[in-house]
Amino acid sequence: MSENILDRAVERILKVIFMALESKKENAQYDKDAHHVLARQVAGESMVLLKNEDDILPLKKTGTIALIGAFVKKPRYQGAGSSHITPTRFDDIYEEIKKTGGSETNIVYSEGYSLACDEIDEKLINEARKVAQSSDVAVIFAGLPDEYESEGFDRTHMRMPENQNRLIEEVAKVQSNVVVVLFNGSPVEMPWIDQVKAVLEAYLGGQALGGALADILFGEVNPSGKLAETFPVKLSHNPSYLNFPGEDDRVEYKEGLFVGYRYYDTKGIEPLFPFGHGLSYTKFEYSDISVDKKDISDNNVINVSVKVKNVGKMAGKEIVQLYVKDVKSSIQRPEKELRGFEKVFLNPGEEKTVTFTLDKRAFAYYNTKIKDWHVESGEFLILIGKSSRDIVLKESVRVNSTVKIRKRFDENSTVEDLMSDSTAAAAFSPILKGITDALQIDMNNTHDMMVAHIKNMPLHSLTTFTQGRVSEEMLDELLSRINNVD
Amino acid sequence: MSENILDRAVERILKVIFMALESKKENAQYDKDAHHVLARQVAGESMVLLKNEDDILPLKKTGTIALIGAFVKKPRYQGAGSSHITPTRFDDIYEEIKKTGGSETNIVYSEGYSLACDEIDEKLINEARKVAQSSDVAVIFAGLPDEYESEGFDRTHMRMPENQNRLIEEVAKVQSNVVVVLFNGSPVEMPWIDQVKAVLEAYLGGQALGGALADILFGEVNPSGKLAETFPVKLSHNPSYLNFPGEDDRVEYKEGLFVGYRYYDTKGIEPLFPFGHGLSYTKFEYSDISVDKKDISDNNVINVSVKVKNVGKMAGKEIVQLYVKDVKSSIQRPEKELRGFEKVFLNPGEEKTVTFTLDKRAFAYYNTKIKDWHVESGEFLILIGKSSRDIVLKESVRVNSTVKIRKRFDENSTVEDLMSDSTAAAAFSPILKGITDALQIDMNNTHDMMVAHIKNMPLHSLTTFTQGRVSEEMLDELLSRINNVD
Repeated sequence: MSENILDRAVERILKVIFMALESKKENAQYDKDAHHVLARQVAGESMVLLKNEDDILPLKKTGTIALIGAFVKKPRYQGAGSSHITPTRFDDIYEEIKKTGGSETNIVYSEGYSLACDEIDEKLINEARKVAQSSDVAVIFAGLPDEYESEGFDRTHMRMPENQNRLIEEVAKVQSNVVVVLFNGSPVEMPWIDQVKAVLEAYLGGQALGGALADILFGEVNPSGKLAETFPVKLSHNPSYLNFPGEDDRVEYKEGLFVGYRYYDTKGIEPLFPFGHGLSYTKFEYSDISVDKKDISDNNVINVSVKVKNVGKMAGKEIVQLYVKDVKSSIQRPEKELRGFEKVFLNPGEEKTVTFTLDKRAFAYYNTKIKDWHVESGEFLILIGKSSRDIVLKESVRVNSTVKIRKRFDENSTVEDLMSDSTAAAAFSPILKGITDALQIDMNNTHDMMVAHIKNMPLHSLTTFTQGRVSEEMLDELLSRINNVD
Repeated sequence: MSENILDRAVERILKVIFMALESKKENAQYDKDAHHVLARQVAGESMVLLKNEDDILPLKKTGTIALIGAFVKKPRYQGAGSSHITPTRFDDIYEEIKKTGGSETNIVYSEGYSLACDEIDEKLINEARKVAQSSDVAVIFAGLPDEYESEGFDRTHMRMPENQNRLIEEVAKVQSNVVVVLFNGSPVEMPWIDQVKAVLEAYLGGQALGGALADILFGEVNPSGKLAETFPVKLSHNPSYLNFPGEDDRVEYKEGLFVGYRYYDTKGIEPLFPFGHGLSYTKFEYSDISVDKKDISDNNVINVSVKVKNVGKMAGKEIVQLYVKDVKSSIQRPEKELRGFEKVFLNPGEEKTVTFTLDKRAFAYYNTKIKDWHVESGEFLILIGKSSRDIVLKESVRVNSTVKIRKRFDENSTVEDLMSDSTAAAAFSPILKGITDALQIDMNNTHDMMVAHIKNMPLHSLTTFTQGRVSEEMLDELLSRINNVD
């Protein structure tokens, strides 16, 4: 390595260091209180209400509420490794819930499980059962302990610790009002999902987690988070399951584009909770989807608008999602793809119009031949949904490509390949007509087995198929002609 | 091409022609009647009883039986293209059912749909409804018409014609006793499966199809076929769905080994009917699985025996299936693989012992490095099932490889790679001990996040991780030492 290259590398590092030094403010102040308020707001907006049967949430500020699980006292609120930081302060979940619950609410606590190991502790479970039984509702705090997920290693399963799963199942046997609050950085299997009334996915909520949880549990804040990932029913449903961890430290990403909802939707595999899912304490109604153009070329844009109304009794935010589906494509594409989302705040009874602008990229796929994003001309569906699996409105548009991709044909190209390209079809049609006339078949009759047979035939087979009437010379001449047209 | 090569090629062709001529028997006779009897037996053994709720089959030889569907008069009984032959005779389904049904049974017929097109014909459906309503049971003959499947083209969906699906649904609304008999060469979707009591998969039954169907429908023959393929719930569940038909006439077989039940079982996707499935009019009980050895080397064999008893009232045949599961493998392997099956005939009350001999190949996978089948030493489960999804007995054995595959390690090999190879582990352990002692961690503590982190670490990272205490020179020396051991 020449000294020159080393100098350049060192220069880059020093540049950043000097920038930092030059921007340094002496005696800089920051508002810890304001930051904590913001942390509480962010945490509240990020939590996702996955299930809420019988509107068990928000909790009433009365009666006895059992908080169960060692996570109540020692919650998981941040990642391990490089994402580990020291917060300026930390909300105590128990105290925050007590504070927000007010004087009419009796808050009790039971440990339920140990975080030190996964083994089932019958004593702790029995205590929790008793506490839950004599309460009006049991809120179980569960999820993945620190050692279950971090950078530096991969999870080998998607289960929660055995002692937590068992706790939930046992408490649900004696208390019909069970709410599960989850702390975890990634999806988990929920074998007990049908036995509990509500699940609040709190993820890793940061330093104001306790206050944010109190806000949501008692309805001071209306949950508005939506899943940015799919929760599959089980590990084996994951797109990468058959390829991971691979062999000899080599993993092939055979799933290609089919990751997340793109996989579950295209394969028709029912997830536990779909991408984009998230409930609210209020109800939103969608109506009046409209597009300003029904037919565009790919250098133009389409504006899509949709009305959303809060028809419930509580103010709240809704994340309106827009997906695009390529109705027919010559390449393998996902069932649909998210191309826009907007979060809107609505008071009870209020209605707003949400508008999305879709350009070429909303319809395009990356074409490796032209090394650019490309739209295949045709029909596209614009789908508006509350989640990837709850599409409520749709509209059809046509997008026309301004880029023509020149195809090259050879003796392995099929009859259908030639027929689907206007230039090739024009040159090939006299030959094809000779064949279909001789066989007395109509290529437009899709019900005819021979038509399907011929469409799938590679050109080189035509010589044998026609017993030489279509000669190799004729095909050579045809190919050189259609490949050299400009 | 030299004349010599041409001569050799011609010689091979002439050899076969001369062999045929020399073996030609003048005035040869063959017994058409005996062949037809055989055709009827083969057809009967090949049909698969997929569903039989309330033991609706076999049919009673009394009352009115409606035979519905154009297939009754014009069944699909053979393939198209090169599999199309002219049979010596052909059983008429209607006549055969009438004959076997006897004088107490009233057989009526209704066309139900046209085979000429897929369009729903309300008139035909209404007629069929009337006929079904005034009968005791409706047997609907349905499946795939000729133009739906053949060599030369691929199916683009797995649906049956729309007019047949609608017919089944409409008949099932007015008649609770519906039996569906299917003619098709490959799986179909059955959207009406919950509305009918029985499904008999007759496939393409050949010239004696009619007699064989009468035998099975009335219980003259006890069905004994088992599916040699999976019937998925829907097209998108197919292992190749995301890769097929590919792009530009190029399909990547990304599913690899995971085809058929190997895919559905490993991915945990519930099929409509699993591989190996097939019902009988009697009941079989399995017991007493035993192996003659629990621990073998891969040049030895294991004999597995299992008792099967007919605990029902009708004589019948059962196909006993043996699957092998590699409990833990360093390569991606299917959940389990079929390694043996036996068809046994049992009179009511009779019990037989079925024995399988498993050699190396039953446990091996094809290793591309040594270009040979290889058994990875370890535990294997031997699973005995009535189908791939109905495993009733199991036994664990250990197989030890006599072939040691030399691994090569490099700076990208992980700590775990080295630890899982006895030679490498021995050489590496002093270095690893230095690291774990300094960190005060116990590598056997699987609950420790740092342990997982270290196991996943590639060797080259150890230098940074130990801040140079494990030097590059030490690693180079280690690698050269473990890669050169014999």
